[in-house]
Amino acid sequence: MVSKKWLKDVKRLHQKKYRNELELFFVEGIKTVKELLHSNYSLEKLLVTAEHSDEFKNFDCDEITAEDLKKISALKTPSGVLAVFKIPTSAKTIEADWTLVLDDVRDPGNLGTIIRLCDWFGIQRLVCSVQTVDCYNPKVLQATMGSIARVQVEYTELASFFNNNTLPVYGAFMDGAPVYGENLPKKGVLVMGNEANGISKKVEAFCNKRVCIPQFGSPHTESLNVATATAILLNELRRG
Amino acid sequence: MVSKKWLKDVKRLHQKKYRNELELFFVEGIKTVKELLHSNYSLEKLLVTAEHSDEFKNFDCDEITAEDLKKISALKTPSGVLAVFKIPTSAKTIEADWTLVLDDVRDPGNLGTIIRLCDWFGIQRLVCSVQTVDCYNPKVLQATMGSIARVQVEYTELASFFNNNTLPVYGAFMDGAPVYGENLPKKGVLVMGNEANGISKKVEAFCNKRVCIPQFGSPHTESLNVATATAILLNELRRG
Repeated sequence: MVSKKWLKDVKRLHQKKYRNELELFFVEGIKTVKELLHSNYSLEKLLVTAEHSDEFKNFDCDEITAEDLKKISALKTPSGVLAVFKIPTSAKTIEADWTLVLDDVRDPGNLGTIIRLCDWFGIQRLVCSVQTVDCYNPKVLQATMGSIARVQVEYTELASFFNNNTLPVYGAFMDGAPVYGENLPKKGVLVMGNEANGISKKVEAFCNKRVCIPQFGSPHTESLNVATATAILLNELRRG
Repeated sequence: MVSKKWLKDVKRLHQKKYRNELELFFVEGIKTVKELLHSNYSLEKLLVTAEHSDEFKNFDCDEITAEDLKKISALKTPSGVLAVFKIPTSAKTIEADWTLVLDDVRDPGNLGTIIRLCDWFGIQRLVCSVQTVDCYNPKVLQATMGSIARVQVEYTELASFFNNNTLPVYGAFMDGAPVYGENLPKKGVLVMGNEANGISKKVEAFCNKRVCIPQFGSPHTESLNVATATAILLNELRRG
């Protein structure tokens, strides 16, 4: 059975402060847990209800009651499995063709969707400003649907990233040039901005090209959501 | 001041059954309410808190207390304004170049996002199967960000829609042909399916072409969310 200490620790891992202190995060959902078990992430603790124990019999797991799981879960309806993994301490060097940079994306659902999109479009490297929502936030992880297993997410001061970058930088701006007319290179960096304010002045200075998704409807329309706009721009990079 | 009858009626309008019975729906949020006030929708009741009364002084409005508004609002933090409009009884005939058809999209956030996308990409006609979530559901309306003012949403048996349609029909299928290679016509119909099951067999029979968004990452990746896939495909239709 799971110890009281672990129940307390998982509860703490709902908060970024404790995730950083303990260097751990947790995921839920059978599919997501399985994908992370088969990834490079290092397992720390696997908690499974009796009902699902058969599915995880090849792993070293602790049984947890449905009542205890409900107490520590981030889900309204817990899935029967919760796994704690180590947060990787250093990023691997990736030879990515395109890197996606997020300048202060704050909404967990948006970041989760963007990680899932990176996975779909084969973008292996995602660089986030330090103000971007934590990718190990349970709501983010839920929205990634397991894609966190395959996309490397780094948090850094963007200025230092750009100072070391030699590839062309495309920024998404409402008043940019229509992306359709751009002859996009094989390698580059795409920058998406904050939900309310777009790309910051500081980061704008590093953008070589300003691109937009043309609007075909009424000028009253609200601008596209950042996750939706990322979907369209990643598709533009890949469609060739 | 607002009558008790209206408080009771708005509460009822959270449910589809009463929306259909009373032929009314409500929206909240200053921007959304203003957009609908300037649209073809016919206003039935405008409820405004004292704090926001100046902004709506050109309209016939009733004052409501913040306490009463909280009781009838669909929002955790009510915006200070709630407007009740008539549900249009019959669809106008629209000469749309492209029509989007939804086959049983069930999630309110997805439908709201898709309506907002139609507005952005100038798709004026959205045809939904009768099982698709109601576009006057408060969660859908919230996600449309006012776009419901500019996109005509019709609910119908899809078989009867297709039997009257003469334009080419493109269906989104996981195993379709890559959309990039398609020479998309100026006018047509795009069909998107249910979140879990995709396009139904019944509707598949009406599709002349099966298209997909190619995947560039790991084959383990979860398929794209229906709203994200719609964003990419509408962009493909419009980019030319």
